[in-house]
Amino acid sequence: MPRSGEPKRGIRSGQRKARQSAPLNQIPRGQYRSPYAPFKIISDDELDAIHTASLTILQEIGVNFLLPEAREILRQAGADVENDGPRVRFDPAMVEETIKTIPPVFKFHARNPECSLIFGENYINIAAVGSPPHATDLDCGRRTGNFADFKDLLRLSQQLNVSQIICGHPVEPVDLPVNIRHLEAIRAVAILGDGPLFGYSLGRQRILDVIEMTRIVRAVSPEELVQQPSMMSIIHANSPLQYDIPMLKGVIELALHGQVICFTPFTLAGAMAPVSLAGAIAQQNAEALAGFTLSQLVRPGAPVIYGGFTSNVDMKTGAPAFGTPEYAKAVLIGGQLARRYKVPYRSSNVNASNAPDEQSVYESMMSLWPCFLTHCHLIKHGLGWLEGGLSASFEKMILDAEMLQMMVQFLEPVPINEAELGIEAINEVGPGGHFFGSAHTMERYENAFYQPLVSDWQNFENWQDSGSQTAAVRANGIYKQLLADYEEPPMDAAVRAELDDFVDRRIAAGGADQDA
Amino acid sequence: MPRSGEPKRGIRSGQRKARQSAPLNQIPRGQYRSPYAPFKIISDDELDAIHTASLTILQEIGVNFLLPEAREILRQAGADVENDGPRVRFDPAMVEETIKTIPPVFKFHARNPECSLIFGENYINIAAVGSPPHATDLDCGRRTGNFADFKDLLRLSQQLNVSQIICGHPVEPVDLPVNIRHLEAIRAVAILGDGPLFGYSLGRQRILDVIEMTRIVRAVSPEELVQQPSMMSIIHANSPLQYDIPMLKGVIELALHGQVICFTPFTLAGAMAPVSLAGAIAQQNAEALAGFTLSQLVRPGAPVIYGGFTSNVDMKTGAPAFGTPEYAKAVLIGGQLARRYKVPYRSSNVNASNAPDEQSVYESMMSLWPCFLTHCHLIKHGLGWLEGGLSASFEKMILDAEMLQMMVQFLEPVPINEAELGIEAINEVGPGGHFFGSAHTMERYENAFYQPLVSDWQNFENWQDSGSQTAAVRANGIYKQLLADYEEPPMDAAVRAELDDFVDRRIAAGGADQDA
Repeated sequence: MPRSGEPKRGIRSGQRKARQSAPLNQIPRGQYRSPYAPFKIISDDELDAIHTASLTILQEIGVNFLLPEAREILRQAGADVENDGPRVRFDPAMVEETIKTIPPVFKFHARNPECSLIFGENYINIAAVGSPPHATDLDCGRRTGNFADFKDLLRLSQQLNVSQIICGHPVEPVDLPVNIRHLEAIRAVAILGDGPLFGYSLGRQRILDVIEMTRIVRAVSPEELVQQPSMMSIIHANSPLQYDIPMLKGVIELALHGQVICFTPFTLAGAMAPVSLAGAIAQQNAEALAGFTLSQLVRPGAPVIYGGFTSNVDMKTGAPAFGTPEYAKAVLIGGQLARRYKVPYRSSNVNASNAPDEQSVYESMMSLWPCFLTHCHLIKHGLGWLEGGLSASFEKMILDAEMLQMMVQFLEPVPINEAELGIEAINEVGPGGHFFGSAHTMERYENAFYQPLVSDWQNFENWQDSGSQTAAVRANGIYKQLLADYEEPPMDAAVRAELDDFVDRRIAAGGADQDA
Repeated sequence: MPRSGEPKRGIRSGQRKARQSAPLNQIPRGQYRSPYAPFKIISDDELDAIHTASLTILQEIGVNFLLPEAREILRQAGADVENDGPRVRFDPAMVEETIKTIPPVFKFHARNPECSLIFGENYINIAAVGSPPHATDLDCGRRTGNFADFKDLLRLSQQLNVSQIICGHPVEPVDLPVNIRHLEAIRAVAILGDGPLFGYSLGRQRILDVIEMTRIVRAVSPEELVQQPSMMSIIHANSPLQYDIPMLKGVIELALHGQVICFTPFTLAGAMAPVSLAGAIAQQNAEALAGFTLSQLVRPGAPVIYGGFTSNVDMKTGAPAFGTPEYAKAVLIGGQLARRYKVPYRSSNVNASNAPDEQSVYESMMSLWPCFLTHCHLIKHGLGWLEGGLSASFEKMILDAEMLQMMVQFLEPVPINEAELGIEAINEVGPGGHFFGSAHTMERYENAFYQPLVSDWQNFENWQDSGSQTAAVRANGIYKQLLADYEEPPMDAAVRAELDDFVDRRIAAGGADQDA
């Protein structure tokens, strides 16, 4: 229920609690933006060729929409729907016209206004890992996802300034019964952090539950919520070219309620998409455009995101590969397509390593650099993803935070002006001198350079004396320190009571069936 | 002596021996080029401001040239030389005019013509680690540099297709006497590999020795060698703004002999250069331009490279930092400056980690991406650099090879045409199907995707069953396999005899004093 008459103090007031444990270096929270032109990996003609191919796919092959209600919406808008379904074919002009109402930029609201984020333009936003069935750390190894690890991962994300959004369960809390899992999980997300919320599209009831929880936590009316995107869901195509019933129910409810739909075809080249990168991306694009079209027919102006997730399988074993050169190219091409349609873009920080080791890091870097080069508005799985998404790693959370901090720092423009060029200082020091004590240095040295979270720049002897720890081992200590220092962000007592009341009532009522 | 009358068979004939051990995935040897526009991190106006500042530094502050012979060359060209030296000030117009003769592109010749490389345009060339005082591997840990490790690192570099050049001793062979070290070391480089050669500028005699060894190995006349750059030396400024005597002797001999001079100011911001990145790069640029000017006065058209090595120290400890966001920006600005002067550009793959761990990898990736984005013509320390250059790591050689292979593969354009867009294949498979057996897949699957050297894409259970090895541990096995499979590249017997004869005579004559 709307709470406009109640006092807002405690909900929106005050600075967000400083998350930084004393000796750890973190960059400030904030909105990160790229000052650099987005990277073009293909020509405009090549981009047009992909666009045209995907419209041809939509027109000649079509997409299966398994929910009759969705087909009816499309049919009424002029799409060619087979009699018995589920195939729907699209007139290219209708698609191009319909998707024009997608907002190129929107604000994604958090219960703490300082955690609200802009999607679009040159903004880059970062989400923690979502959906792994396992959690892992160096002490206890890999275990089945559970609610205790789930909550610790939420706390860790809240402690890391660069982790801005929870986007999917950071690990699947398998010990919570399926029918009430979304209620307990999203209550924990809402309480343990203060960012925007997320719900899985596993049927209409679950999405409606999370939308209502979002409204309660944001303390707004239903009418206000429609105008203020405050939760998100990922809509996967069941590639190739198919949208399943729970996902389509999600699209319809999210669009009706003005909440964010991130369409993400999962087009693994060689498996669910053509083995050629161009073909996989053409199919990805066709699936995305089909989803966009439905969303805008349900409610013109509904906020959507273009999710790219094209990677490939290892053709010798069928194993999925992530953070490869092909993945890097697909991220960049996807970014160009999203810019063409003026739709905010989502990609991911991925790797296929089984440990938070060197491979996990270089595959991540093969993902992150393209994400930053193409102005990726949502970097999903930004922190903690391991093992092709099958594990959430506590140490990888920290290693990723370091990499992301460095990438964000890379976005800070180099000031070039007379004072910074420092000719006077160079003259003062002169040939053969040094700059350690010069006035120019003393004025600037404290904040001149990036200070690392994990990196150890000690000399070899000192590093050896302090235990010869590798970065992953140091990350283990850092995550524990951050968890020890965690404090729950404040929440208005009335909001908390309303949230608890809603969740308890829904649990008492039996929660939700998957297909409800 | 010239050997033009002798048969060339065996020197230049034949394909280079395939370096690949059967089960290891390597990309082919070759010349790597970027099809992408170089990344612009600062505006043209900002670039001009740095250029202008460095000319002001040269005009008003000047550079110390400690070798009288060098000062005399500059004085005759109109530079303002203080009476007693060593300060030299430059008229900006003279600098800009003089450096115009630098070749924007040149071929760097190897004894095996297949290993010759183009410097300039969009070519990217990769060198192994140079000059660390220690070697390290996971089995034996860190030890003082020695000739046995030196030779193993040469063999490993020869085995790795992506390692194209030996650029400095891969580890310092401290067990060789200083006066004959260059003779034994470069003989080993010449014999154990078949790429271009390198000599340190530690006095006139050493450079002349290496130039003569290069001539013998290339089997050309002195007159031919002048026209065919076949060895390189790095010329460091003793920053700030000073060139020492051995380096200047090197510049003069290299220019006279037409061999490659890679000018590389070592401008650590906050120590030997201003704490501000703009100031450090302005100083780097001034030092580079001063060196360029001398080289072109000695011999117009002498091949030179613009080496950027601006990084920063940790202002809390004074420890040098590498592979930071500041380093990434400096690499890109340096690339823009080099392009402005139409001089081939050198940067490096660096990190400050004490182990071949996650930090070593993410700091490397913070170096490599900018190198590739800016068309770095020489990526020095491309493989094996550890601990801020104090150690050569056998495992890091392999990890770097994997990262470099991925970056080179990233340079392969995505083909976008009707066949690759694969609409027919998508139609054939249809919604809800899969592409594993389709004709489109079968035609392409073998070479569709990057095959890794180190990465393990097995599922968790299989990875665990095979020993739960991290990437660094797998790299240890790979380097040993490559060394076990190594075979010396063929060398013409007469060339070998002439080389041995020269080296033995020079050793018998006592080698070279450092200041000779």
